[in-house]
Amino acid sequence: MPSNPRLTLLIANKNYSSWSLRAWFALHSAGIEVEERRLPLFTERWYEEIGGLSPSGLAPVLTVHRDGAQPLRVWDSLAICEYAAETFPERRLWPADPDRRAVARSVSAQMHSGFMALRQAMPMNCRATGRRVEIGDALARDIDRITALWTGCRERASGGPWLFGALSIADAMYLPVASRFATYGVELGGAASEYAAALLAHPSFREWQRAAEAETEIVEEDEAGAVVASSSPW
Amino acid sequence: MPSNPRLTLLIANKNYSSWSLRAWFALHSAGIEVEERRLPLFTERWYEEIGGLSPSGLAPVLTVHRDGAQPLRVWDSLAICEYAAETFPERRLWPADPDRRAVARSVSAQMHSGFMALRQAMPMNCRATGRRVEIGDALARDIDRITALWTGCRERASGGPWLFGALSIADAMYLPVASRFATYGVELGGAASEYAAALLAHPSFREWQRAAEAETEIVEEDEAGAVVASSSPW
Repeated sequence: MPSNPRLTLLIANKNYSSWSLRAWFALHSAGIEVEERRLPLFTERWYEEIGGLSPSGLAPVLTVHRDGAQPLRVWDSLAICEYAAETFPERRLWPADPDRRAVARSVSAQMHSGFMALRQAMPMNCRATGRRVEIGDALARDIDRITALWTGCRERASGGPWLFGALSIADAMYLPVASRFATYGVELGGAASEYAAALLAHPSFREWQRAAEAETEIVEEDEAGAVVASSSPW
Repeated sequence: MPSNPRLTLLIANKNYSSWSLRAWFALHSAGIEVEERRLPLFTERWYEEIGGLSPSGLAPVLTVHRDGAQPLRVWDSLAICEYAAETFPERRLWPADPDRRAVARSVSAQMHSGFMALRQAMPMNCRATGRRVEIGDALARDIDRITALWTGCRERASGGPWLFGALSIADAMYLPVASRFATYGVELGGAASEYAAALLAHPSFREWQRAAEAETEIVEEDEAGAVVASSSPW
């Protein structure tokens, strides 16, 4: 493998696609150069092109181009992050300490597969503010667990703004949650509130957010909200 | 870290807990010794003990014991598999080739976060046979995608019974799907059918299956089926 393979990242709408954001942010904040290819959800182009671009039919997909060889496709946000961590070890996408890395992977995998109530009740919409939804038991439990998890990680990280000291894939996993909490007016206490603010103030997210605000497509969230796979838009 | 840390794997019921099975099978089939701790779902003991044993409140959890140090807890099935792959590199839980490893991680992550229709309509129940459920559009799509994925991986693996040549974490991820297909009478074609049979005939799974059949607890699946996080029972 050449040390700097040419990479293309297929993403869906920046306004709506939380899993695109996770992969994009992990790479972008680590300074890994990718050519971005945006395919707006549920448009004619989406249906025409997604089958040829994504083995799972979902975004994001990272394509690794090599001279004279078939391109490698890596799909699913977490697999993309693992690929980047392996391919660019000097960027330290995971904590260097094996124990901390194991916990960071636990925290990331928990987001990757869980918090369904949150994901269904509060679809990401970067542009939207002032939304309110009813906070039922399952949603309240998700919010409490996430708040406790953020607070606990930051206590153990002792001081840094991020979950495991330096910025890592774990932070990329929870960034869309911070965006949702802002959109839906979820009030957080102390450390969790500081953490969410730090995520939303990160220059890479600011860039994403500006692009999301400039997008013009509207997706019917109720209809599409049923799709909850981790490579899916929500 | 000592080269052979003492490991405890917390699992839920063998009959019902597909995510426990994934982590258990990945470790067991690789010959990694763990002390097994079974906590039957939704029993008095479950509610009393799970909070102290699992940071996410779910099974499985791998605990790494060290003399004179706090134990390390790794939760979520996929994070446990990644920890084992890193800690026991000679066991080759992932394919050795980086490209194949990236695809194996994609396939595994796709299962970890997706196929919700399948997971909800066909909860794992190792003991049960002869069940039938209505195959709606979403469920049919999941079954088709999984069948195509198994078939495509085996074609590229050219000959071996497993998805990526040697047995890997990717196979552990799909083992409970093979069990479901048997329980719910889903008929598969050629290579996919052979693959499912190979998974179900693996000695480690046979051992799990015998233990599942010897369990006496009954869990109301309808009620509990709403829990779909990857560390959850279903």
